[in-house]
Amino acid sequence: MTRVSVKIDKDGRLVLFGAAVRARRLALNISQETLADLAEIDRSHMGKIERGERNVSFLNIVRVAQALQCQPSDLFIDSGL
Amino acid sequence: MTRVSVKIDKDGRLVLFGAAVRARRLALNISQETLADLAEIDRSHMGKIERGERNVSFLNIVRVAQALQCQPSDLFIDSGL
Repeated sequence: MTRVSVKIDKDGRLVLFGAAVRARRLALNISQETLADLAEIDRSHMGKIERGERNVSFLNIVRVAQALQCQPSDLFIDSGL
Repeated sequence: MTRVSVKIDKDGRLVLFGAAVRARRLALNISQETLADLAEIDRSHMGKIERGERNVSFLNIVRVAQALQCQPSDLFIDSGL
């Protein structure tokens, strides 16, 4: 599982997106580890995505959405973006 | 303008997303160079995004959407994602 995003100063929109991911995950009643495994994303990277600490890539957005059984656009709409 | 995505094998969903960006750009009747400048993205990187050759980052998706006067979710919906 290669990680291509880098640590960045927290961007409000990334924090909103991470919160949207977390909300959908909790609604499915699954752990962060389970979501990471389902999305085939490194577990610590998933934690950083949920905290808005990573400038997450398009393909990881798609993987996370699939694992959350929703569309990538849903996650952006949930984030108000 | 830092670039954080890497060359990847073409992924169909990235190609769809790039086509959605291009369609919105053409609808605004602006050049790829103008879109790159508006989005503050390197011009050659913008070309690769439109061709689906880059695993574009969240913040660049947001910048491109802003430059296209739409929401990031619109670009994903246009892409069928």
